[in-house]
Amino acid sequence: MTLDIGAPKNIESFYKFTDDITNPELFESWKPKIQAYREALDKHLLPEYRVSDVPTDLDSKIFNTVEYIKNSPALSEKEKEITESTAKTLVDKIAKSEYSAVEVLKAFAHRAVIVHQFTNFAMDIFIEEGIKRAEELDEYLAKTGKTVGPLHGLPISLKEQIGYAGRITNGGWVAWLDNIPKEDATTVKTLRKLGAVFYVRTNQPQTLMHMDTNNNITGRTRNPHNSLLTAGGSSGGEGASVGGKASPIGVGTDIGGSIRGPAAFSGTYGLRPTSRRISCLGGVSSGKGQESVVAVAGPLANSVEDIDLFMRSYINEGKPWDDDPSCIPVIWRDVPKPSPKDITVAIMFDDGLVKPHPPITRGLKFVESKLKEAGVNVVKFEPIDTKEALETVNQMFVCDGNHAQRVMLKPSGEPLLPLTKWALSLGDSDKEYTVTQNRELNYKRDVLRKKYLDFFNNNKVDFIISPTHVGCAPVCIEQGIAGPYYWGYTTLFNILDSPTLVFPSGLKQDPSIDVKDETYVPRSDVDKIEQDKYIPELFEGAPICFQLSGKRYTDEEVVAFGKVLEEIFKKD
Amino acid sequence: MTLDIGAPKNIESFYKFTDDITNPELFESWKPKIQAYREALDKHLLPEYRVSDVPTDLDSKIFNTVEYIKNSPALSEKEKEITESTAKTLVDKIAKSEYSAVEVLKAFAHRAVIVHQFTNFAMDIFIEEGIKRAEELDEYLAKTGKTVGPLHGLPISLKEQIGYAGRITNGGWVAWLDNIPKEDATTVKTLRKLGAVFYVRTNQPQTLMHMDTNNNITGRTRNPHNSLLTAGGSSGGEGASVGGKASPIGVGTDIGGSIRGPAAFSGTYGLRPTSRRISCLGGVSSGKGQESVVAVAGPLANSVEDIDLFMRSYINEGKPWDDDPSCIPVIWRDVPKPSPKDITVAIMFDDGLVKPHPPITRGLKFVESKLKEAGVNVVKFEPIDTKEALETVNQMFVCDGNHAQRVMLKPSGEPLLPLTKWALSLGDSDKEYTVTQNRELNYKRDVLRKKYLDFFNNNKVDFIISPTHVGCAPVCIEQGIAGPYYWGYTTLFNILDSPTLVFPSGLKQDPSIDVKDETYVPRSDVDKIEQDKYIPELFEGAPICFQLSGKRYTDEEVVAFGKVLEEIFKKD
Repeated sequence: MTLDIGAPKNIESFYKFTDDITNPELFESWKPKIQAYREALDKHLLPEYRVSDVPTDLDSKIFNTVEYIKNSPALSEKEKEITESTAKTLVDKIAKSEYSAVEVLKAFAHRAVIVHQFTNFAMDIFIEEGIKRAEELDEYLAKTGKTVGPLHGLPISLKEQIGYAGRITNGGWVAWLDNIPKEDATTVKTLRKLGAVFYVRTNQPQTLMHMDTNNNITGRTRNPHNSLLTAGGSSGGEGASVGGKASPIGVGTDIGGSIRGPAAFSGTYGLRPTSRRISCLGGVSSGKGQESVVAVAGPLANSVEDIDLFMRSYINEGKPWDDDPSCIPVIWRDVPKPSPKDITVAIMFDDGLVKPHPPITRGLKFVESKLKEAGVNVVKFEPIDTKEALETVNQMFVCDGNHAQRVMLKPSGEPLLPLTKWALSLGDSDKEYTVTQNRELNYKRDVLRKKYLDFFNNNKVDFIISPTHVGCAPVCIEQGIAGPYYWGYTTLFNILDSPTLVFPSGLKQDPSIDVKDETYVPRSDVDKIEQDKYIPELFEGAPICFQLSGKRYTDEEVVAFGKVLEEIFKKD
Repeated sequence: MTLDIGAPKNIESFYKFTDDITNPELFESWKPKIQAYREALDKHLLPEYRVSDVPTDLDSKIFNTVEYIKNSPALSEKEKEITESTAKTLVDKIAKSEYSAVEVLKAFAHRAVIVHQFTNFAMDIFIEEGIKRAEELDEYLAKTGKTVGPLHGLPISLKEQIGYAGRITNGGWVAWLDNIPKEDATTVKTLRKLGAVFYVRTNQPQTLMHMDTNNNITGRTRNPHNSLLTAGGSSGGEGASVGGKASPIGVGTDIGGSIRGPAAFSGTYGLRPTSRRISCLGGVSSGKGQESVVAVAGPLANSVEDIDLFMRSYINEGKPWDDDPSCIPVIWRDVPKPSPKDITVAIMFDDGLVKPHPPITRGLKFVESKLKEAGVNVVKFEPIDTKEALETVNQMFVCDGNHAQRVMLKPSGEPLLPLTKWALSLGDSDKEYTVTQNRELNYKRDVLRKKYLDFFNNNKVDFIISPTHVGCAPVCIEQGIAGPYYWGYTTLFNILDSPTLVFPSGLKQDPSIDVKDETYVPRSDVDKIEQDKYIPELFEGAPICFQLSGKRYTDEEVVAFGKVLEEIFKKD
């Protein structure tokens, strides 16, 4: 096994932005704040929850946190039982007083501390506050015989960028270490009202625009299945948390794949809902007033039923539109699990731009044959305008000439991580568009959405299944950035605003089967970068997951068919 | 009575745009097309439907078309009965074969021809096509015993800008006289599917951005209550049509007041729904890709029940999101008519920027006392950030530096009408904003929406009632432009995206009561323009109407309370 996998050799030729951001002297003045932040995080990792056998070579040797916990005596049998339960089981048992909210919270908090020791997934942890809240809920239930809501006692992890009253909310930008919101974000308020218990907020990359999770505040998050691999991004902390069962449900956000990459890389379910169903109000981001391609928030979980529980409770009982005027009051409809025979799925094997790695292609063939076996009508999907979709969405990301990112980055002078340089170089990079140019992008998007809607309707296709990424989670260790660069498989569904569920196929990468095709000639420089990084033996054990996408606003149908997929493709 | 009411004396000092648009020589080449278009319109006004006593001084002497028709023998008693029925009555009677679709269509077509002779409200009329369609519907019903949908046989007028397959769709721009869509707009498809019958498409102003209706193709539309007054704009043809009962329901669009101004000026009901509920896909406009303040489509009608019928049928059975991916699948909810005692209304007497004319203030006091009498809890509304809202929305209208309007106007070189010059001079006029500046506007909008939502919630206010315009329909004859210039009362609810229903108070302007306050000192130049134009004797008979606004997406609650208002304020 070699770890000689540095950045792509020609990577600097891709960089197009002007670095008037980094300022080492200025950054020096922020270091005490970073240090204090890290110390606070460390202090909150309760010593009694920690394990003492964390290897020192996590970044040079494959380590599987999920397997470690399975075999470790650090968690009691009861703690394992609790943390391996679905959210649905947990809320049912808490409501019946079979579990107390406190024991559930403590079990997840204990597991979270251990998972963190191996993956560095947490950015902010506050177990004492969680226990206090769980105690109150237990008391309320004991006194009234009632739960406060459908998520009574359920521990939920939150991506750190989501504003939390009284706690630093930095979004991965050093300069935001001073930001302490007075008020909770709408999503925090809503979940709290429904009975959720908070105890951990999770890691994210600098700029929130990497398909990896690394920043200058608390550093890199490792994949819970293989410590060399990325947990994805930008909701990578959530992926590692839910994948490592440090939380039963996590809330991430997604503007280019940021829920789906992490869910796929850590082998969990993750839903990128249609926009404006889950509130993004009250978070830290560079996206104020940007509505060409809007960020969405959504759940990661270990079962589709839990995704459904989250969406249904949050929307129908949480009514976020009462607090956030940008949320639409589209009720979560009851859609029964369909019969496979009534469903037509189009499979996209390749977007025509960057060829998927061998495990992905193997996985898709497996999915195709299992679906056919189950009676699903499977048709091939010839990508529609994927090149234009990619170019348009990449331009949208930076069409303010990176102005908003500069506003977030410059006040700290923090050094730019390699994937930040990549993200700032998308589209036309520093070139600020005019309003007219921006509207032209929006119009291209609207035409694309109509084409895809017509495709669904004219071909009576219910869903598209596609790769979440060109490969499984790639290696992404600190000084050897080997990816992920290409986001086209996920961004397609951002520009379309399609509800998209990531589901595990149950398969994992296997170096002995998923051998590299040495004869393949890359179609482009970006394709070459992505192909070069496929070194089969490094990806060992990486989950193989896919995306299920439906028409805009058919989130309920996507989730209902996701339950069918869950039955067909057992996750573990 | 004096007609010496030219343009405001200092009007040219407001013009800020560069006129690189008009090109008399080029325009000369378009004149034959305009002539052909007018001739085609004239040809379709069936001679047997016309009256012969149209005065020649409609533009210099008050003429009341509504009264004329009431007293004229031109329409048979049956035709009057039909055209004075609500849409609900019509569809019920057609479904029971008490009326045939053909006789209903013919009655409205007959009335439309007469109303057109006095008001010039139609831009495109095609009675033969309407009769043919009505015949098919009658045959279908006779054969199957079933209607094709909830609007079976209902004549509906359409604002001309809405794309109609096979018919010129110009949107008021001369250069678009060559545009013949191959496909119907989503709204046309949807209504057709529900059983609507089309026969007339209605007039609109050059640029679609006047609160008046006048263009270089078919000219100016007169108010059906007073021929000197404007029918409003941009859906002024619809206002005159529905106000004159040339159609029972009309479809307009509204980005700054374009449904509400016309509805109020012609004394009808009109709903500006929350955005994305009624499709705008497939129309001609300058708004492609512009989403800072989005245009909406919505109905005008002579009863609130008809507004409800339209919205419910269009949304719940029409499902426009199946064809237009930008439409949101928010079902039209059943909201019962509330008890007045359960409702709190905040009344905005004045936005603090431009003072309403005497009839509006009198009307609001009347509304206040009648509501209190009915048991409604009435509170005073202190305008929240109306100045910022106005400045922001005006900047949004032109922040592409008028680029999109130039693209629409320049190819014909057509002369710019005075209110076009006004519209192109809003905000920063020709200055094209950057993406960052546009996002700042969007963010200001989002902050405003949150403030207003908090106002509703924190004060337990259900609705806001406000003036639709600074006054009743002002004089707007061709060479004597005396308004309307100020749109702040309507644009406030565009930037908030609040569902807003215009309702008649039942009152009309009365020169003997609504005397001018000669002591008032205008607050600004725009206020002065608006006050100067109030010459009481010219407004005689103008309806006094108001706006009822609710929280975003509470269209159903607004319409349900609208039914209460309809009972309190008898329209005729």
